[in-house]
Amino acid sequence: ITDVSTGGPYIDTNTQYLLSSAYLVFFMHCGFAMISIGCVRARFARHIAVLILIDACASALGFYLFGFAFAFGDKTDADGNVAGNPFIGSQYFALHGLDGPTYFATAVRPYAFWVFEWAFAATACTIVSGAIAERARVEAYAIYSFFMAAWVYPVIVHSVWSSAGWASMFRTAPNFLGYFAKGSGAIDFAGSGAVHMVGGYAAAAGCWIIGPRIGRFNADGTANDFAGHNSSLFVLGVMILWFGWYGFNPGSQLVLVGGTNSFAVSVCAVTTTLAPAAAGLSSLLTKAIVTHFTTGKHVYDVGVMGNGALAGLVAITSGTSTVYPWAALIIGGIAGSLYVFASWVSIKLKLDDPLDAIAVHGWNGTWGVLAVGFFASETLITNSYGLNQDGEVRPYGCFFPGGNGALLAAQIAYALWIAGWVLGNMIPFWLLLKYTGLLRATADEEALGLDSSHHGGSAYAGGMEDDKSHTNGAA
Amino acid sequence: ITDVSTGGPYIDTNTQYLLSSAYLVFFMHCGFAMISIGCVRARFARHIAVLILIDACASALGFYLFGFAFAFGDKTDADGNVAGNPFIGSQYFALHGLDGPTYFATAVRPYAFWVFEWAFAATACTIVSGAIAERARVEAYAIYSFFMAAWVYPVIVHSVWSSAGWASMFRTAPNFLGYFAKGSGAIDFAGSGAVHMVGGYAAAAGCWIIGPRIGRFNADGTANDFAGHNSSLFVLGVMILWFGWYGFNPGSQLVLVGGTNSFAVSVCAVTTTLAPAAAGLSSLLTKAIVTHFTTGKHVYDVGVMGNGALAGLVAITSGTSTVYPWAALIIGGIAGSLYVFASWVSIKLKLDDPLDAIAVHGWNGTWGVLAVGFFASETLITNSYGLNQDGEVRPYGCFFPGGNGALLAAQIAYALWIAGWVLGNMIPFWLLLKYTGLLRATADEEALGLDSSHHGGSAYAGGMEDDKSHTNGAA
Amino acid sequence: ITDVSTGGPYIDTNTQYLLSSAYLVFFMHCGFAMISIGCVRARFARHIAVLILIDACASALGFYLFGFAFAFGDKTDADGNVAGNPFIGSQYFALHGLDGPTYFATAVRPYAFWVFEWAFAATACTIVSGAIAERARVEAYAIYSFFMAAWVYPVIVHSVWSSAGWASMFRTAPNFLGYFAKGSGAIDFAGSGAVHMVGGYAAAAGCWIIGPRIGRFNADGTANDFAGHNSSLFVLGVMILWFGWYGFNPGSQLVLVGGTNSFAVSVCAVTTTLAPAAAGLSSLLTKAIVTHFTTGKHVYDVGVMGNGALAGLVAITSGTSTVYPWAALIIGGIAGSLYVFASWVSIKLKLDDPLDAIAVHGWNGTWGVLAVGFFASETLITNSYGLNQDGEVRPYGCFFPGGNGALLAAQIAYALWIAGWVLGNMIPFWLLLKYTGLLRATADEEALGLDSSHHGGSAYAGGMEDDKSHTNGAA
Repeated sequence: ITDVSTGGPYIDTNTQYLLSSAYLVFFMHCGFAMISIGCVRARFARHIAVLILIDACASALGFYLFGFAFAFGDKTDADGNVAGNPFIGSQYFALHGLDGPTYFATAVRPYAFWVFEWAFAATACTIVSGAIAERARVEAYAIYSFFMAAWVYPVIVHSVWSSAGWASMFRTAPNFLGYFAKGSGAIDFAGSGAVHMVGGYAAAAGCWIIGPRIGRFNADGTANDFAGHNSSLFVLGVMILWFGWYGFNPGSQLVLVGGTNSFAVSVCAVTTTLAPAAAGLSSLLTKAIVTHFTTGKHVYDVGVMGNGALAGLVAITSGTSTVYPWAALIIGGIAGSLYVFASWVSIKLKLDDPLDAIAVHGWNGTWGVLAVGFFASETLITNSYGLNQDGEVRPYGCFFPGGNGALLAAQIAYALWIAGWVLGNMIPFWLLLKYTGLLRATADEEALGLDSSHHGGSAYAGGMEDDKSHTNGAA
Repeated sequence: ITDVSTGGPYIDTNTQYLLSSAYLVFFMHCGFAMISIGCVRARFARHIAVLILIDACASALGFYLFGFAFAFGDKTDADGNVAGNPFIGSQYFALHGLDGPTYFATAVRPYAFWVFEWAFAATACTIVSGAIAERARVEAYAIYSFFMAAWVYPVIVHSVWSSAGWASMFRTAPNFLGYFAKGSGAIDFAGSGAVHMVGGYAAAAGCWIIGPRIGRFNADGTANDFAGHNSSLFVLGVMILWFGWYGFNPGSQLVLVGGTNSFAVSVCAVTTTLAPAAAGLSSLLTKAIVTHFTTGKHVYDVGVMGNGALAGLVAITSGTSTVYPWAALIIGGIAGSLYVFASWVSIKLKLDDPLDAIAVHGWNGTWGVLAVGFFASETLITNSYGLNQDGEVRPYGCFFPGGNGALLAAQIAYALWIAGWVLGNMIPFWLLLKYTGLLRATADEEALGLDSSHHGGSAYAGGMEDDKSHTNGAA
Repeated sequence: ITDVSTGGPYIDTNTQYLLSSAYLVFFMHCGFAMISIGCVRARFARHIAVLILIDACASALGFYLFGFAFAFGDKTDADGNVAGNPFIGSQYFALHGLDGPTYFATAVRPYAFWVFEWAFAATACTIVSGAIAERARVEAYAIYSFFMAAWVYPVIVHSVWSSAGWASMFRTAPNFLGYFAKGSGAIDFAGSGAVHMVGGYAAAAGCWIIGPRIGRFNADGTANDFAGHNSSLFVLGVMILWFGWYGFNPGSQLVLVGGTNSFAVSVCAVTTTLAPAAAGLSSLLTKAIVTHFTTGKHVYDVGVMGNGALAGLVAITSGTSTVYPWAALIIGGIAGSLYVFASWVSIKLKLDDPLDAIAVHGWNGTWGVLAVGFFASETLITNSYGLNQDGEVRPYGCFFPGGNGALLAAQIAYALWIAGWVLGNMIPFWLLLKYTGLLRATADEEALGLDSSHHGGSAYAGGMEDDKSHTNGAA
């Protein structure tokens, strides 16, 4: 947010910009559903679909009741300045009071802001489903999804996106609990950290605690390939996600009208294009080269290319408004190869992650947060965030002359905070579910396929068979 | 529509808001296609796809030639006030004259308004396809689709959304043919009634008259399960529909700029989120509880959860701009359970409705229209519709103190009108098709599968088999 | 573009309009992926998906480095007037300088314009994938995609959409190298020519040079039916494309605010609805009639109807802002039948085009360019493009009195230029790939299916089988 042109028509235009972005972000949920369905085995298709629909529903409930309030419910003082505490918000529970005056109501309708932020919360929640797919119980997942949207995720959001948050660029008091000067918070523009690291680290904890699917790893440490049952739906999901990311990133400028806001939005659209393009190509090539040297035959793997492009999108998400197009190509190019490496690491660690959520969101979310410390440009930071509260240029990437490392330090501190908060909350949470027996389906249910044991039968009744007997055979 | 900021730039902004909403509504057609394909058996996949493509095409033709004129073609008097008759419009056939001055041209480009309204008409049409799937003839369906878009649907629309309509909130003369005071029309903001009841009741009539699919019901009154062939495409369809509904509901404010319009739009976005969230969870739980008590094992049914979420969307559509978030949760929560009950009723009545269109759209459309009579808030009605033509507050929900039942009475009258008009037109229509032999394919064709008998072969050539023989067997 | 209301807020609104259109155009890429996957055999599903993901990625790289500069990189003179050469642009390579002053920066953010234009480039590229599917090598396709986005496509775009282009409506110097007067360039509003003819003709060249799939044609000249493996995904793709076309066509007005821009945008939305509606119906009927007379049984072919609707969209794309709704019905109606004919011609010419890209994009792109010469209306041309630089009405369609054929002549000249440029570049290009052995997979690889031989295995692991054994058999 730079200058805001206030007054009715601008609020109206900003509101529609924010809402149409929110709709695109919600549609990413559909993309997650499709990649998830595509990446599980056919007898778990209904199972994973139920988990992802639960994410949409339970996150709405959790974010309505508590999440938004914890994330953005900061009080204002008599002068209208934000006077919340740096850790957590304390009003707007169940949207109470959100139709009255708020500190953001001069720029956009607060209800629209809720919808936008909920769509992000749903995204953070759903990242986890892939990592514990084919074995998690529905009941456990519903509890998790509410817990994530109502508590774990909002606290991170408050720290970096609320005007009162201790790591926020919008904070007028000193950031990082007094350590950094005003206006030098962490840059996590659209949430490589707040959304993707949060989801990815929660997924890692869950994946580790729930354990691998039966038969995935052999006694000698080798892994069996549990290939997903539908690459076509996977590709559909990837392209829906890329499409939806144009709401996720450009929408995160939050306001459109006034100052250089629409310029920053446009920068986001460019970098959100170039990073996945570079990442798609680099992941495809990396895998082809690796398979060439390990098997003598290069494989052009659509699964790797799709996840690679997503990794590029994840990685650019922190810096999308503040890095130049060439830097987006570098960030994305590295993300694509990093994904291939991280996916291999998951296997080595016996983390059985059917969707590669840890490699895509955890690793590349971290890379995205750190990359800003190198590549965020002085000009584009001012373009997107304006000058700091004293009218001074904010710290910028250490790749550039004068980028003194202050921003990189902030990014590192912020990344450590996310890792600590998420793992500190989620490890006990998953362990609690595990030891109460809620977490995982029985071995029999899993072997049968959860669609049969829990969801009323196969997702593909007749297995496409009933038509063949009619069209290929005698009628 | 509350106050409108007129003048060029505002019209431009409003037009883009309306068009981008229209595109989302059109995309719902894709969602309908996916849920429909997913819910039929594999050998009817092409068949249902043809019906739904015909809906898009024939509705465009019907709404271009006649529908829009009947719905919105009201004349104006010398002062520019609407002076149409309360039943039906009479100009703009084939869009003739729509590029000149019209009574809505000060707020939005009339051509854009046509596109938005056509997208709604296509939605109303397509609801029916699911209820007569796997047995209706293509020729009959094309005639139906044109008839619906050109005649049945537009007359309802005129009654409630045209400024001249006898049940319209925008009417300056007394509503309900003199019975109610000015400005106390029925609230059917985005069409739980005008779209979903219309589609749902037409579907019920068609489903009843065409009769069940061969073998669906046994002589002893029990039903055989004709499971759909692809739950994954069904889920895709559900999520596309939810996404598109953000055009359907928030777009129905029609104008964005000025007054509290963008506030009303934001309320729509919130309630369009919370109602399906509540409905998805309530339908999932209801079904799990029912199956627990009837079979001893709870089933988390993705088909029920998906249709339940859609039922919540249908039910919130009338009141989306005028009920508070908490009321959206109530309306949606009830809708989810109501869907499960209504689906059971269809089976009991031997209405063989492969898509549950009657339960989702008919029952929950009715619930949505009535719910407004309980929950519409005084403040939000003014927010969305403004004061009435005498500057007075309009009647509001009887749940609130002072809500005296006038609005509920209007909603009931309006619901009865829809039921009467739709059944009064559609029952003779379906019977005519039936007795001329146009309505239903022959038993042989149906047994073979309509894809083979009418559509040139299976939708899945090779039945996914040709790849297996190559990848799993010897090349 | 007619008058532009300049100043900050209007640029902001225009930018968001252009970006949201760009996102829709990008989503068409997903539509192409789905129709392509649906139309190939199951053992080539991953293969075609990789090609289409490469289009998105390589086109971004090519259009970033060179394409945009060649298309729109025109210099301005000291007065700020465009002073580029009529053939090709010469600045903004790698977006260098695009964040500074440009000749279009008063209307829209230049970075947003890049995103919009890139999405078009990606579309032009991807049309080709279908025509050489199931046999092209990945390496060849990556080179092609970059070459198309960086060189072949941008030169056509410059000729008709840049202010300096020799066939451009925006040109202030005489068009067509001095032959026509100012302001009477070719009307190719959203690119029936620049996108679809370019893609379609490149596809024809590639399809011809790579040769048919093994076994597609018999020695006696008859053809074997290689039916696609998934009509459901095909239909999904068609509807996504139709949806995305609402960004493609209405977005091509480029600016929204001021003058009659939003009126022109609305005309686009109407004609983009009516043309595919008419084309869908006419193609369905044409095929039913043809099959009736050739086989005695009419077939309602969903593949034909879907491609027919796309043909209607392709054909309306040139004239979408300048033809009346009734003309859109005519253009679309003809397009639907023309597609059926053209598809038959491809078979007769032994052009093995699995997606019918030549028939849909090549033939109907040409029809679309020419149709403007007949049907473009004087009023709507002024509405969309304004008067010419001397304040005079521009030439219009020869169907209308006073339409003297000048516009039709311009359209013909422009179509010939596209055909010459594309074939002149692409025939040598494909031949070079062919004779270096890069173009086509080996016969063994093709017989095995490229998914197995190049892409690591089937797209449908387990072939949907693993669930059947569990749900239908004993557990």
